[in-house]
Amino acid sequence: MSLEKRPKSIDLAHHLSEVARKRNVSPLKGLQKYFNNDDLISLAGGMPTPAYFPFVNIGADVLNSESFSLDPTRSSAAQDKSLFVSWLLSMLGSGGPDSERTTRISVPKAPSDEDGGLNLSEALQYGAATGMDPTQEFIQSFTARVYRPGYSDFATLVHGGNTDGWSRIVTTFCNPGDTILTEEWTYPSALSAAKPYGIQVLPVGMDGEGLRADSLKDVLAAWDEGKGKRPHVLYTIPVGQNPSGATLGVNRRKEIYDVCVKYDVIIAEDDPYYYLQLGEYVPKASRIPKTQHSLDLKDENKRFLQSLEPTFLHLDYQGRVVRLDSFSKTIAPGVRLGWFTCNPLFANRLERHGEVTMQSPCGLGQSLVIKLLQTWEFDGYIRWIRVRTQRNFFLDQLSGAFDLRPTLGTQEQGAWCGRTVFTAYAKAPRTLLPDEKAFLGPAQPLFSFVPPSSGMYVWVKIHFTEKQRASHAAVQNEESLERKLWIKIADAGVLTAPGWFFSTDDDVSPTDPNVEGHMRMSFSQATDEKMKEGVDIFATQLKKFFDLD
Amino acid sequence: MSLEKRPKSIDLAHHLSEVARKRNVSPLKGLQKYFNNDDLISLAGGMPTPAYFPFVNIGADVLNSESFSLDPTRSSAAQDKSLFVSWLLSMLGSGGPDSERTTRISVPKAPSDEDGGLNLSEALQYGAATGMDPTQEFIQSFTARVYRPGYSDFATLVHGGNTDGWSRIVTTFCNPGDTILTEEWTYPSALSAAKPYGIQVLPVGMDGEGLRADSLKDVLAAWDEGKGKRPHVLYTIPVGQNPSGATLGVNRRKEIYDVCVKYDVIIAEDDPYYYLQLGEYVPKASRIPKTQHSLDLKDENKRFLQSLEPTFLHLDYQGRVVRLDSFSKTIAPGVRLGWFTCNPLFANRLERHGEVTMQSPCGLGQSLVIKLLQTWEFDGYIRWIRVRTQRNFFLDQLSGAFDLRPTLGTQEQGAWCGRTVFTAYAKAPRTLLPDEKAFLGPAQPLFSFVPPSSGMYVWVKIHFTEKQRASHAAVQNEESLERKLWIKIADAGVLTAPGWFFSTDDDVSPTDPNVEGHMRMSFSQATDEKMKEGVDIFATQLKKFFDLD
Repeated sequence: MSLEKRPKSIDLAHHLSEVARKRNVSPLKGLQKYFNNDDLISLAGGMPTPAYFPFVNIGADVLNSESFSLDPTRSSAAQDKSLFVSWLLSMLGSGGPDSERTTRISVPKAPSDEDGGLNLSEALQYGAATGMDPTQEFIQSFTARVYRPGYSDFATLVHGGNTDGWSRIVTTFCNPGDTILTEEWTYPSALSAAKPYGIQVLPVGMDGEGLRADSLKDVLAAWDEGKGKRPHVLYTIPVGQNPSGATLGVNRRKEIYDVCVKYDVIIAEDDPYYYLQLGEYVPKASRIPKTQHSLDLKDENKRFLQSLEPTFLHLDYQGRVVRLDSFSKTIAPGVRLGWFTCNPLFANRLERHGEVTMQSPCGLGQSLVIKLLQTWEFDGYIRWIRVRTQRNFFLDQLSGAFDLRPTLGTQEQGAWCGRTVFTAYAKAPRTLLPDEKAFLGPAQPLFSFVPPSSGMYVWVKIHFTEKQRASHAAVQNEESLERKLWIKIADAGVLTAPGWFFSTDDDVSPTDPNVEGHMRMSFSQATDEKMKEGVDIFATQLKKFFDLD
Repeated sequence: MSLEKRPKSIDLAHHLSEVARKRNVSPLKGLQKYFNNDDLISLAGGMPTPAYFPFVNIGADVLNSESFSLDPTRSSAAQDKSLFVSWLLSMLGSGGPDSERTTRISVPKAPSDEDGGLNLSEALQYGAATGMDPTQEFIQSFTARVYRPGYSDFATLVHGGNTDGWSRIVTTFCNPGDTILTEEWTYPSALSAAKPYGIQVLPVGMDGEGLRADSLKDVLAAWDEGKGKRPHVLYTIPVGQNPSGATLGVNRRKEIYDVCVKYDVIIAEDDPYYYLQLGEYVPKASRIPKTQHSLDLKDENKRFLQSLEPTFLHLDYQGRVVRLDSFSKTIAPGVRLGWFTCNPLFANRLERHGEVTMQSPCGLGQSLVIKLLQTWEFDGYIRWIRVRTQRNFFLDQLSGAFDLRPTLGTQEQGAWCGRTVFTAYAKAPRTLLPDEKAFLGPAQPLFSFVPPSSGMYVWVKIHFTEKQRASHAAVQNEESLERKLWIKIADAGVLTAPGWFFSTDDDVSPTDPNVEGHMRMSFSQATDEKMKEGVDIFATQLKKFFDLD
């Protein structure tokens, strides 16, 4: 099915309709055939001769795609560490990397008939903003196979990572004075990309699943045209949302999509954590060891891909989704490579933007990444990205340090209503008798969170007490309780991402930081030992702050 | 000397003063010390563990810095070709690259105390928009040493090539409705970067040396405030200007700088061709072979650097220059790496822009480029970039195909007044007797050009005749003579860059393309043989077009 109804009614503002159109008016009108003809003698270009490129070839030793265990009961971070140490040692010694774990790849300068365009004569030359041919082929076929977009004439286009991609969406689809829609807590750089152009941000309510469709509908229905044009771009992180860790299920996505159809809103789907879907968190004691399946790799991969939430792109029957994919979390952030998937008109305009900024992403990077992917092949890459983050390990540590009690979120918990919410209490000293416990009165909830089913983050809500507020108010301190607690924990040696980072408003937090503090804790970066140590320090400092030590 | 008077009076519009300031308000206020402290256990970041980066090391075989001859009498393109063939053969065989001409470089994943930050654990991680530490160190020290900026507290900052750099200047220093100043013929992508933001372009007159200071002064003095704010950003390509090939001498630069001081204009110095300064063109017959100096490499390099025109950056005593440097012409365009040099305030704002777009340029690319430069060392790199383009060879071919007559540009020649202008006439058949020549009447000038002293381009002006215009007008053809000729030449097998590409106005050319046509011919890309063949085809088609065959 090819796209029939494009979101034409959207007022795409001058950037898309006028100015990006202008970018699109090529001075080549009607002469493209000459510029695409390699048989002509070119006295036209400012391109240097490839012979002058100093790289005769490039190469790498790359890990095999099955280097890391998929067994969730085994600590993969510990494994990482031993792997890290092993190559550290091997690099320091003369042995070179462990050849059983690695494969050597290389990309020569000289083109050949079989290389599909993967050579340095191409990679190091000026390139189209669509990226190198082999990059383009990979992302197009990967997108078709894994996401199965809702229409067949979708286009893919490289960018320099999702942050770059989102910036290009902003400057292509928005005008100064426009308003964009975002989750009420969101990725700060996404806001910093938009605000300098005079673009306003309208926060949309969230719950434990992420963006709320009813809240989206409400803010759009209640839009006051006197304040400017109705928002026509929604920025959302649907999986492992940053910072909340929430993931949108298929029904919620359909509701959101319907609202976007009704109000003609483009959906920018920023989805770097898509492959970090982990399923529901089950406390350690209740965890049932997974039975080993004897499926082969391809079947296991297929099952894995089927287990993932469908993307907005998959549900998109009108071409109103611009999906952002990134290699940052699946290969490495430093490759600065990712891609858009969207309808061909949008892709054309985003390509024009690419032509006047970075042009084709770095050819050395594209070459090595694509050669790696070609070496692993599709199923090797899927095997590689199936390796999980340490969510269970991290939450198990919290569970060891606190008395964690799961409850169903109540109406009073607002955003978390209906979700399984874990509330943390100080552990009763083991020596306490039941009578003594009763004597202490009802336990003080310290913080709570919805265990993330995806991504890298736990979004922790701290429940400050009346008493804390009173003594805080008494000392006339400009700093909020949230900030004071954050500093205490940092002074004790643990860095977390403070709640105010993620507020859509620079000055006003969605919640009062003297009533509810927030902290984003990540389980992607530290080793298991450091995570455990970090949670212990966090627990000690938190109890101190609550006068419970 | 550190910068005392910054161009503070410039109204930097909301992007610099308000909005980029906003970008600059970090939610970290006062907490930076924690985020710069590696001893803290980080549960904050979204960074993956380096153990998961699949690249265990990367490497390359790179050409030695003295691979190409500096001898201008030897055809270096032919040399390139043989080199190209030699590595082509070596890559196809099992021998690998010729080790006498190449050095193997590699960058491991594991950090070490001596690597100065050049390792993949850093390179593949999220990085600051200032680039990797070793990149930053190279560009800072290179800039200080080679350009000697006019003040000591200058800042350098990576970008993704000069086109990306200029885009960031536009979106940081300009607002919708602003007007920028450019040479009257200029790089089309520079205009495409600005126009979509509603930014107007005001062309400034040129002559054979490039931008005219008097013309700049005139347009600024005559500015009608009713049309909007006076332009405050000048975009200029001072060396080997694209498309004209013109190069600004030091006196002209000083005059331009003074005008910019008077009218408070920021100078964006886009200088990719800086090292392609070739000196005056001397026709083959009058060329005196250079005596061989017995200087050592360092002295030769020093002499080379001293021979280059001083940059605007060097003359900049007020911090109003933003210089753009690129590795595209010195290493390879596909590395997409270059840098800004400017005052620290400007650099700070440009860094904020980098944070929300590409962030740090590709770490694989930075690693390989910087490792190459570290391997070559400063003097090796300068030796590498001293290899010249084939200007002499190309102009010698034109001289062989036409009767080229140098004259001093007259008042009537406007822009070229006072410069040595070569005018091309059809060669008289050798069999013609003097009487016969006289019988043919005055020769018809076909085209003319000022031989470029720098860069990659010859900017050719075609002189259409009254007769051509008359017959053209008679057939009611929408296509200009310039375009018709361009198509004839392309159909015959030679691609040149047509004049209308470089017009600051999409619809109106600075000159009537039925009176004066333009064509940019480059001598950087084709091999010597192809250049020769191309010039022969060009000559044949041109004579046909002028009914001289």
